[in-house]
Amino acid sequence: MAGDSIGLLFRVTNWGESHGAGLGVVVAGVPPGITILPADIQKDLDARRPGQNRFTTSRQEKDVIKILSGIENNETTGTPILLMIENHDHRPKDYKNIETVFRPSHADFTYTAKYGLRSKSGGGRSSARLTAGSVAAGAIAKQVLTHAFATDILAYVKSIATTCSPYDTTAVLREDVLANPIKTTDTKTAEKMIALIDTARDNGDSLGGIIECRITNVPVGLGEPIYDKLDADLAKAILAINACKGFELGSGFKGTQLRGSEHNDAFIKTDHLSAPNNSSSKKTPPKKSTSTETASDPTTAAYQLTQNIRTKTNHSGGIQGGISNGMPIVFRAAFKPTATILQKQQTVTETHKPTTFQAQGRHDPCVLPRAVPIVEAMAAIVLCDHFLRHRGQVGHFYTS
Amino acid sequence: MAGDSIGLLFRVTNWGESHGAGLGVVVAGVPPGITILPADIQKDLDARRPGQNRFTTSRQEKDVIKILSGIENNETTGTPILLMIENHDHRPKDYKNIETVFRPSHADFTYTAKYGLRSKSGGGRSSARLTAGSVAAGAIAKQVLTHAFATDILAYVKSIATTCSPYDTTAVLREDVLANPIKTTDTKTAEKMIALIDTARDNGDSLGGIIECRITNVPVGLGEPIYDKLDADLAKAILAINACKGFELGSGFKGTQLRGSEHNDAFIKTDHLSAPNNSSSKKTPPKKSTSTETASDPTTAAYQLTQNIRTKTNHSGGIQGGISNGMPIVFRAAFKPTATILQKQQTVTETHKPTTFQAQGRHDPCVLPRAVPIVEAMAAIVLCDHFLRHRGQVGHFYTS
Amino acid sequence: MAGDSIGLLFRVTNWGESHGAGLGVVVAGVPPGITILPADIQKDLDARRPGQNRFTTSRQEKDVIKILSGIENNETTGTPILLMIENHDHRPKDYKNIETVFRPSHADFTYTAKYGLRSKSGGGRSSARLTAGSVAAGAIAKQVLTHAFATDILAYVKSIATTCSPYDTTAVLREDVLANPIKTTDTKTAEKMIALIDTARDNGDSLGGIIECRITNVPVGLGEPIYDKLDADLAKAILAINACKGFELGSGFKGTQLRGSEHNDAFIKTDHLSAPNNSSSKKTPPKKSTSTETASDPTTAAYQLTQNIRTKTNHSGGIQGGISNGMPIVFRAAFKPTATILQKQQTVTETHKPTTFQAQGRHDPCVLPRAVPIVEAMAAIVLCDHFLRHRGQVGHFYTS
Amino acid sequence: MAGDSIGLLFRVTNWGESHGAGLGVVVAGVPPGITILPADIQKDLDARRPGQNRFTTSRQEKDVIKILSGIENNETTGTPILLMIENHDHRPKDYKNIETVFRPSHADFTYTAKYGLRSKSGGGRSSARLTAGSVAAGAIAKQVLTHAFATDILAYVKSIATTCSPYDTTAVLREDVLANPIKTTDTKTAEKMIALIDTARDNGDSLGGIIECRITNVPVGLGEPIYDKLDADLAKAILAINACKGFELGSGFKGTQLRGSEHNDAFIKTDHLSAPNNSSSKKTPPKKSTSTETASDPTTAAYQLTQNIRTKTNHSGGIQGGISNGMPIVFRAAFKPTATILQKQQTVTETHKPTTFQAQGRHDPCVLPRAVPIVEAMAAIVLCDHFLRHRGQVGHFYTS
Repeated sequence: MAGDSIGLLFRVTNWGESHGAGLGVVVAGVPPGITILPADIQKDLDARRPGQNRFTTSRQEKDVIKILSGIENNETTGTPILLMIENHDHRPKDYKNIETVFRPSHADFTYTAKYGLRSKSGGGRSSARLTAGSVAAGAIAKQVLTHAFATDILAYVKSIATTCSPYDTTAVLREDVLANPIKTTDTKTAEKMIALIDTARDNGDSLGGIIECRITNVPVGLGEPIYDKLDADLAKAILAINACKGFELGSGFKGTQLRGSEHNDAFIKTDHLSAPNNSSSKKTPPKKSTSTETASDPTTAAYQLTQNIRTKTNHSGGIQGGISNGMPIVFRAAFKPTATILQKQQTVTETHKPTTFQAQGRHDPCVLPRAVPIVEAMAAIVLCDHFLRHRGQVGHFYTS
Repeated sequence: MAGDSIGLLFRVTNWGESHGAGLGVVVAGVPPGITILPADIQKDLDARRPGQNRFTTSRQEKDVIKILSGIENNETTGTPILLMIENHDHRPKDYKNIETVFRPSHADFTYTAKYGLRSKSGGGRSSARLTAGSVAAGAIAKQVLTHAFATDILAYVKSIATTCSPYDTTAVLREDVLANPIKTTDTKTAEKMIALIDTARDNGDSLGGIIECRITNVPVGLGEPIYDKLDADLAKAILAINACKGFELGSGFKGTQLRGSEHNDAFIKTDHLSAPNNSSSKKTPPKKSTSTETASDPTTAAYQLTQNIRTKTNHSGGIQGGISNGMPIVFRAAFKPTATILQKQQTVTETHKPTTFQAQGRHDPCVLPRAVPIVEAMAAIVLCDHFLRHRGQVGHFYTS
Repeated sequence: MAGDSIGLLFRVTNWGESHGAGLGVVVAGVPPGITILPADIQKDLDARRPGQNRFTTSRQEKDVIKILSGIENNETTGTPILLMIENHDHRPKDYKNIETVFRPSHADFTYTAKYGLRSKSGGGRSSARLTAGSVAAGAIAKQVLTHAFATDILAYVKSIATTCSPYDTTAVLREDVLANPIKTTDTKTAEKMIALIDTARDNGDSLGGIIECRITNVPVGLGEPIYDKLDADLAKAILAINACKGFELGSGFKGTQLRGSEHNDAFIKTDHLSAPNNSSSKKTPPKKSTSTETASDPTTAAYQLTQNIRTKTNHSGGIQGGISNGMPIVFRAAFKPTATILQKQQTVTETHKPTTFQAQGRHDPCVLPRAVPIVEAMAAIVLCDHFLRHRGQVGHFYTS
Repeated sequence: MAGDSIGLLFRVTNWGESHGAGLGVVVAGVPPGITILPADIQKDLDARRPGQNRFTTSRQEKDVIKILSGIENNETTGTPILLMIENHDHRPKDYKNIETVFRPSHADFTYTAKYGLRSKSGGGRSSARLTAGSVAAGAIAKQVLTHAFATDILAYVKSIATTCSPYDTTAVLREDVLANPIKTTDTKTAEKMIALIDTARDNGDSLGGIIECRITNVPVGLGEPIYDKLDADLAKAILAINACKGFELGSGFKGTQLRGSEHNDAFIKTDHLSAPNNSSSKKTPPKKSTSTETASDPTTAAYQLTQNIRTKTNHSGGIQGGISNGMPIVFRAAFKPTATILQKQQTVTETHKPTTFQAQGRHDPCVLPRAVPIVEAMAAIVLCDHFLRHRGQVGHFYTS
């Protein structure tokens, strides 16, 4: 139960370093009989990998997924899945100048303090490259959720620095997000953000921002009070992403300024209309199961969001009392400006002598676009784990 | 590992309901030989309990702590501590009118959907009253941390609705926080907040706000990447508090608007000056240990914050790469306006018929002042757990 | 996750001491809607409690179960169940003479060494009295298993010292076991054992023995390789019982002397005849569920042991490759002679001075009869936990 | 927390299949600064691998260890260690004839029943080949224990079928065990066992037996009552080994026939003479640490077994009340005869039709010699985990 694992039943264990032989995850506890194609995983890895375009670091990592166990004939066996991504583009020379100093706002100092040593070639275990393993695990979680509930997870860049998308979350479509390199809600906002990032790069500086995530077709009943509330576990998973400094659900920090009479979400009766999906085109049906599940299996799609109660507003963000209520889950994650900048900064050496440090090499001026698939992956892992946990304790899902 | 437990080595298991026989926690994994007086726990319970003054609900619960195991002669034995608080002030009649409706933005609907049933007399397991157990467990965690590192945790109300304290976190003193009924930073801000709350109560409405927490004398090296980062586990623990909708560390959401060159925290060398404490008077030394620990024990106060590296600014909020860096940990928690209001609201019954609901009885118009000790307790539990986990893996603490 | 808890989804946390205010368990993760009457728990506690007859210690503990949370109207709510048994019959004076010596083969020395202190009034946390909490938790697990699969767990004394029951496990009936005070297989064997125990008591000596357990109506598919095999988790749970020194499944140690051609269990096809139950009278149907489960719920009795494959012999003891195969689970547990004897023994004091020790007070000359319900309880906890875990990951149970 | 992981702080997660790309473990939570040479791991793998001599299967697997993360410059970094062993010698054709039948006393049936599918090429996840990962993880645990306490773990074959070594555990020397291919206590016993195995092989049959394990230089205080007792966790780890059907500690099942006055272990005072080691030559000092630990670190060798209390006899097997008492830990494990035999056996097909099955290919007639390093490895993992857990909770080790 070291900190390298997350999830109780859907259990992801992350291993590897940024500049060693490779990195990856073991995903244990996956339901058997789920179809997983390498392309399902590769797609998300490609969205995270560096070198996609000028808005991400030019470091070229192919990040090719290798499945070494747990999947036979594109189907999960119920046993641990070992996913590996080999490191090819080391360039340790890029990191020569950081060997003896603590880079400001990096983990050099804290890793050294905790473990008594640290990797000298790049971030080692503290590198954001390790999130590739999380993304791969999240791709499997997404397949499980799609299979069972047609759950759909869509993250996108909401703001960069002070430039914020004008679109409300309910108006955001996946096709629009995929259509621009910033992974924001629309082309016009993307253009403004591109200009900001270009300026930051020219100045050897970096930018932060906010990613928003909207999850639809969430089964009712996920989350385990009073500590493993669904929003609590989401907050943890999101804060575990490198550079993340904040999490808010639904109305979040702004909601603290409302009165209760404004904030409460009235319950209303609907005519079995399911909540709108994140895709503009009609909902993709869940993949046909090759398992022995029948239509009477309460965990299949047939039992999903058929309840006829929803809320008029969604200030709660889809979770009430720590348990999903069937409305879309909406949360936001704050990402600080990347710590690595090309300007000269004050710091100390490992032997505690004052010095200055100026980064060189390949670095993202803004981490947001590449963090989008990571946010989706972490959310998927949490939801999938709570799906299995709920099924374990209660055995069925609410319908009405 | 149901959701009613938190912590890996310092393990808190919460039990009980708001209107049953009682509630409490089992705290397992506590180091032996730590002095715990009932008053240490009662003090924090009193800060949380209702009926303290007109700014909290007038429901009168004495919330007297009972220690049933694990402490002998005011000293921990290393075995599980059972803490119990009996329920005395039931008044189930107050809850007659909620038996058949789903109260808006409460957990009535989600608990019913998850478990197929729910408590009819009050919130049952979803009640904020359950946080009394967390507060009691947190009081024990605080003693462990005080004993080992003189760690000091201070939470206070930063804002209510749009009224925000003008004081910077480094200027907040415990004695000032304790001196006003709102538990905010100063008397003048308290007066403004009192006026707001009085108005809300008159309108049968409720208010939200933000609590800030500052933790000093934090040992370097706490937190376990890549998933059990210290900030990730703090976020989870804080989001698990009823009505909490957001968490941010250090610069948080505002920090996303800074450039990297502004945000990075430069490392500087100090002359062994420890970080300023939350108390204005001089630092309270850790309680004298009655255990067999000697001065050479690396976990005692002698080994604490003696490192001579700190950061010039603290945008990181005391945690870098998921590991504490010895600077004060600073975070904020967003609390939505209380769901229970005395106005008529739209909702549905358990049999899905539209209806209206208007709360009666005793309710907080603003939960913030009573949430202050809960925030401290949850933070203490997380820090104490990571203290033991770090000591388990590494066996010593960083000094320089 | 301190050692005071067992089970992953069906999670039992034990608290209390032998001579403090009381003891008990929190049982978390229990499925909602299961009928639990206090008498279901009390029955097993009565079978374990001291003072039942002259073959057990004359210490009189009523061991009355108190249910403080998690059960409303005799039905589980899905939230933590706090079970408490108050201590009434302290007699601390009986323990005066053990305050300063380490009793041979007791835990006085190891508890002192581990924690730096130990309870001076009786065994504290090391007392077998703590198993009362396990028995209470096991009673809940039994109800869950009965409800879902009509699973039946029967333990009995197989041998005391060198006196062994001549009956094969398949011939043992619950009514015969309950009909004799030793809880062995038949009256005649019981008489021999009574004579042995009487002699040991007269000599101020103690006896050990072997308990056998047979579990029928076990669903196929429980157990999680490669480490949480069902037999591995059973072994752990049984070894955790005080005085237990060994565990063996099916053919066990004797089976090491067979050749593979003798030991292998041939698979055969049956005509849907379920395995024989432990009761002589016809099988008790599972209690009627008050939950919303329907006949199509794969976890109800309708889906139980209907497969038509079984094994000709059962050397495997019902578990193959760590997973239950639907045959009766049969295991044996070795219990050493009770450490407390009334003879003078060599030992040392807490300050390491040689001395002698002679126990006084109320003590079992043979722990076996009272350990029978403990063995059943620990087995029930393990099976129930694996039931929920299997349902979580796979969602259905095998039928053919 | 799926069943593929073991250990709470020293956390081993096993992945892979017998006939896929490879297999291995992630070992997380390892203390930093421990020297681990590939040869340390390879040595134990070589002792387990097939094809060593005619007494083990002739299947030729080189089982070369690959370290992909967590160790830099032969030193642990404190981050997850990925160990991999590639599969080279597949020969799937050997398994053609098992594709449609359930082999008697194999896991074919139970895996199919649990997961709804199973690997068609060999045992897949149920193969004993998976224990190679456990052995590799155990080699790391051994290094940690050697580093901290000079703990020494020695397992050996005690009996095969009815042929039992005449040597008492205290007389067994590592050099004698290593000197014979059966890994039993002496050459003469080995010769008898060889004759037995040769006969079994000629008959297409198989044999079982008992492995004994003796662990010296065990620190006092390991184990966490009341469920994670050291012996309970050892029992679990040992029962998790393929073909293991029983575990007993110290006097074990035979001890049930003794009277308490015979069985109790008297405490005596010694003159700081440490318990005898498993090696005939003088005790190997622990490897020099390259970490920053100093002599005053209570977890280093300086603090090890210096207490001057021991027991006259060791019927307890080194554990009392679930906590190590500093005496050698002695336990035995029962292994059934290998399920795979070359004789024709009765069984059913996957479609439940009666048939016969006769194994072909390469198979061990007796698994015992190769199980010796597995037993050592599982014991090392348990001890190492409890070492870190004890250090986490209590922070120091007992000395007197």
